[in-house]
Amino acid sequence: MRITTVGLDADDTLWHNETIFRVTQDRLRALMADLAPVETLNAKLAEVERRNLRLYGYGVKGFTLSMIETAMELTGNNAPGPLIADLLAAGREMLNHPVETLPGVDDALAELVEDYRLVLITKGDLLHQEQKLAASGLGELFVGVEIVSEKDASTYVRVFDRYGTGAAEAVMCGNSMRSDILPALDAGCWGAYVPYHITWAHEVAEPPSEHPRFAELASISDLPAWVRSLI
Amino acid sequence: MRITTVGLDADDTLWHNETIFRVTQDRLRALMADLAPVETLNAKLAEVERRNLRLYGYGVKGFTLSMIETAMELTGNNAPGPLIADLLAAGREMLNHPVETLPGVDDALAELVEDYRLVLITKGDLLHQEQKLAASGLGELFVGVEIVSEKDASTYVRVFDRYGTGAAEAVMCGNSMRSDILPALDAGCWGAYVPYHITWAHEVAEPPSEHPRFAELASISDLPAWVRSLI
Repeated sequence: MRITTVGLDADDTLWHNETIFRVTQDRLRALMADLAPVETLNAKLAEVERRNLRLYGYGVKGFTLSMIETAMELTGNNAPGPLIADLLAAGREMLNHPVETLPGVDDALAELVEDYRLVLITKGDLLHQEQKLAASGLGELFVGVEIVSEKDASTYVRVFDRYGTGAAEAVMCGNSMRSDILPALDAGCWGAYVPYHITWAHEVAEPPSEHPRFAELASISDLPAWVRSLI
Repeated sequence: MRITTVGLDADDTLWHNETIFRVTQDRLRALMADLAPVETLNAKLAEVERRNLRLYGYGVKGFTLSMIETAMELTGNNAPGPLIADLLAAGREMLNHPVETLPGVDDALAELVEDYRLVLITKGDLLHQEQKLAASGLGELFVGVEIVSEKDASTYVRVFDRYGTGAAEAVMCGNSMRSDILPALDAGCWGAYVPYHITWAHEVAEPPSEHPRFAELASISDLPAWVRSLI
């Protein structure tokens, strides 16, 4: 057994993402403070997002539409115009938000790229993810970039067949147990779970118990040593 | 010289798309009939769409956000709530719209797939394009599906290297002179322009004059014979 390829999730693995969504949600709560109790707002937003996920997929544009829909539903279709304009602006600001790589990412990737093929595998809006990767300055490190609508075991089989030497010789690293780790393990990959300090409710899942190809790492800085240990 | 691979655009080449946008724009005009003159509305929507293209890219979600933004700007941030709710609903209906293949598509593709590798190359929302392809029943015919944020010469070079035998041995067929034909010709492909009866202003461009690798076809039904003639 050898490892030839390392797959990396992007949002909250290479750069901040969920914090930007949380800041925008705080803004929505502040804007709607006089219109709905905060618990009602939280529950409605979660319901609308879940309902729309099938139609909108992942990313900022769908989230912005879901915020507006939440505001409409909580006000009986009577949301103040300036509130809607503010939500549109909040969405555009999220898309324009500067990309900040997480601590340890640049060094870990610089070390890994010496010995392994690196592949970026991410969900979200196609254009926005491409723009974030360009802004991160990390683009040149990857032999492949796959922006996908959903991450399941077949996704990992396909991507590691295309850019690597198959799933069995690949490590997948990410912050989502549900999207990055469990389906990658199912595909036959090794899984390196590097939690981010907050997780979108939709991405939460139980870790595998005593799985032989799984590790939880405290930081992406620990990834190169773990990958090298798999011999 | 031989042709091994045929690339096909999706929206308005394989199935209706622009008509669905036009119907929704008519709906916006009707909803705003008492709020803004129709010429003002048309000009503002075009301006907002153009301004947002860099941020939103192509597809229904960005268009829905641009319709809402247009309504806000034309009313001094005072659009009636029910109007906004209607625009959200219009966007969801576009995403749920049944996929109708254009006349001749099924037969032309069935004929081409006998002798050529078929590749789908399209812009738009990632998830929505995947869903439309699945709904079209055409998915099995393609050796590759590339949903891209922009179509330029490098896109065609990359895609026909990946799925075919290079751009020089590939035909690209589509309804957009600007996105499907001119950059494909630049890449070294052959270009088969099959106009749709309406074209989004952003996609309009002048045809090449007397280009040796270009043809305008009246219908996709003429594509198999034209491809076979390139020997």
